[in-house]
Amino acid sequence: MPAVDRPVPEAEISRRLDAFQAALRASGLDGALIVQTVGIYYLAGTAQTGHLVVPADGEPALLVRRSVERARAESPLRRVEPLRSLRGLPDAFASVGLAGGRIGLELDVVPAALFAAYGKILAGYELGDCSLQLRRIRAIRSELEIGCLRRAAAVIDDLFAYVPDVVRDGMTGLELSAELDRFLRRRGSVGLARFRGFNQEMVPAGVFVGGPDAAPGCADTPLVGWGVHPSVPKGPSATPIGPGVPVVVDVACALEGYQADATRTFVLGALPDDMQAAYERARSILHAVAGEARPGVAGSSLYDQAHELADGIDGFMGTAEERVSFVGHGVGLEIDELPFLAAGHDAPLEAGMVFALEPKFVFPGRGAVGVENTYVVRAGGAESLNAAPDGVVEVA
Amino acid sequence: MPAVDRPVPEAEISRRLDAFQAALRASGLDGALIVQTVGIYYLAGTAQTGHLVVPADGEPALLVRRSVERARAESPLRRVEPLRSLRGLPDAFASVGLAGGRIGLELDVVPAALFAAYGKILAGYELGDCSLQLRRIRAIRSELEIGCLRRAAAVIDDLFAYVPDVVRDGMTGLELSAELDRFLRRRGSVGLARFRGFNQEMVPAGVFVGGPDAAPGCADTPLVGWGVHPSVPKGPSATPIGPGVPVVVDVACALEGYQADATRTFVLGALPDDMQAAYERARSILHAVAGEARPGVAGSSLYDQAHELADGIDGFMGTAEERVSFVGHGVGLEIDELPFLAAGHDAPLEAGMVFALEPKFVFPGRGAVGVENTYVVRAGGAESLNAAPDGVVEVA
Repeated sequence: MPAVDRPVPEAEISRRLDAFQAALRASGLDGALIVQTVGIYYLAGTAQTGHLVVPADGEPALLVRRSVERARAESPLRRVEPLRSLRGLPDAFASVGLAGGRIGLELDVVPAALFAAYGKILAGYELGDCSLQLRRIRAIRSELEIGCLRRAAAVIDDLFAYVPDVVRDGMTGLELSAELDRFLRRRGSVGLARFRGFNQEMVPAGVFVGGPDAAPGCADTPLVGWGVHPSVPKGPSATPIGPGVPVVVDVACALEGYQADATRTFVLGALPDDMQAAYERARSILHAVAGEARPGVAGSSLYDQAHELADGIDGFMGTAEERVSFVGHGVGLEIDELPFLAAGHDAPLEAGMVFALEPKFVFPGRGAVGVENTYVVRAGGAESLNAAPDGVVEVA
Repeated sequence: MPAVDRPVPEAEISRRLDAFQAALRASGLDGALIVQTVGIYYLAGTAQTGHLVVPADGEPALLVRRSVERARAESPLRRVEPLRSLRGLPDAFASVGLAGGRIGLELDVVPAALFAAYGKILAGYELGDCSLQLRRIRAIRSELEIGCLRRAAAVIDDLFAYVPDVVRDGMTGLELSAELDRFLRRRGSVGLARFRGFNQEMVPAGVFVGGPDAAPGCADTPLVGWGVHPSVPKGPSATPIGPGVPVVVDVACALEGYQADATRTFVLGALPDDMQAAYERARSILHAVAGEARPGVAGSSLYDQAHELADGIDGFMGTAEERVSFVGHGVGLEIDELPFLAAGHDAPLEAGMVFALEPKFVFPGRGAVGVENTYVVRAGGAESLNAAPDGVVEVA
């Protein structure tokens, strides 16, 4: 096996587990069974396949299907052991002191049939949900995590600087996305965007050209993209890039497991006046809402603020019939994490939260314009992890 | 909205629905609720977001969250209607004649929390599983589907011919994968590999270089890849390509929704003699097993045959400690479909089934070699959809 650098130090894993165990106890759960790759990586520091059994008190056990050797090298947990069959789970539970009681699983992602299988094998336990507890803890990022996100955001900034070198009149959005995803891959981004939501998927370098890619689509996002075929009706399409046509480049770059998310608008020549004005409004919303984001402010109030500031220009976050439900979303190990800047999300922001804010305007049949940065909530306000210039990029 | 070509004709959707409804009736199910994107695309001809309600007898209704307009343009179903809230489901069920009874869902993919929500909303119904019924029907491909797979396989053949143009001494597997995924994207493949299995993910152009990428890993596949970071411990890595080092290019190319899967082995210069001999054995296994694949033959007997033919060379389908569970797998709308050529899969092959056959040998610490084509089962035997030369490709 190649040499392994441990990606998450023991002290950080301990802090995460302490917070998660406190949340389990506060919810009346006696333990948790974590099975999603991302959840295991967060709490155990390895993404090898298996089960992580976390008692509400005491030491967890990582039970690895494959590869045990790699999991042992990566994870700072003391108990990393092989488990080939689900039938070994009750013994593993007993070994961490869980002889019965209420066990939480990530029920928002665990398939129903798999959950039913756990129910049979763990017949002596009451199985419930711990996904919200885990998502809430993950939403508060450590400086280690913020460092990963900062490096990912810097790659996106570099990508924005690269776009004018490759975009050409007559090139399709699909072709431009091929060049941009190649750039990301060469910078060490593996090319997978991880979602928590069911049925969600996207390519890392989103390229949205003109009217077709701004049409209402299958996802609750400002721009869905027309796609190349009805089987995947999202993302880049064969729409050609031409003078005056807005090209929105919306990139989720995953580096070291963490995904930053940012958007810039490009155009060959110049945008029509109304689109340019909408873009300036989007940029002023970006600055104003980011300026209000600080600990104690609710995501819902930032959502309201954005919509108030957009007043007078149609098409903010979609058409009246198909409006997006948010103006910002948490990013981290997944692209759809807490917090959400959306109606009903009244929980106050906390220091260490990271979100992407993406004010965008849609012009039906003509295209869209918008801008997006990834921010970290600090005690004194929001810090942008992106540093690229945020005006429309006019390519000569 | 841009003009829409209907991707699946009405007659084909009717045949699929007839087969699915017959399977529901044979299982004692009164209807099905299909919610996965791929399932909706298969049965309704659109991948817009929503719910497909299929009674065991009678006309189905596609209830669309977004976009209704696009779903109506793409789907040949007569009933394509908006549904904004899950609370509308009972009325929709009643409208297709389902006032109660047993309803199947795709429980292998539907998250447990979502399934529980359906259980509350559809309290008057008994909810069960219909995923196996749907997967079995999907495994028998129409000529329309085989045409999609044939075109996808042809793009992979072209990609194999392109590899010698771009591979260079000192280039990493990650860098080569960037070039190859760019090639696929430019040929119209959107860049997403769709899995059915929980926690599964991969980049389309798999590149596996030398020892690190042949190390045992987190997935039940012949080659997992070391990856670029422990958070995504799979796929291409920073391992440099050099003379005599095997470079396995294993590509899942999705075109028009359908994914073909094929592998070739490349080397700068020539392989060591033992690896070359193992490759020749893999190729002879490919030909022999494909030659035996025809209607009536069990997937498990082909698996046994492959292992018998590999006898005498270590490392077939992994190390003794981490052996892959199959030598072939169905491909279609997802990359892990029926049939499986694996122990325990004793159901006979049927005409129209499509599978990828991938005999590979692993040399721990040194690399892997192997070959793979996508085949369709015809009455007289298996037809390869790949036509690329199947020897080791030596690059000068």
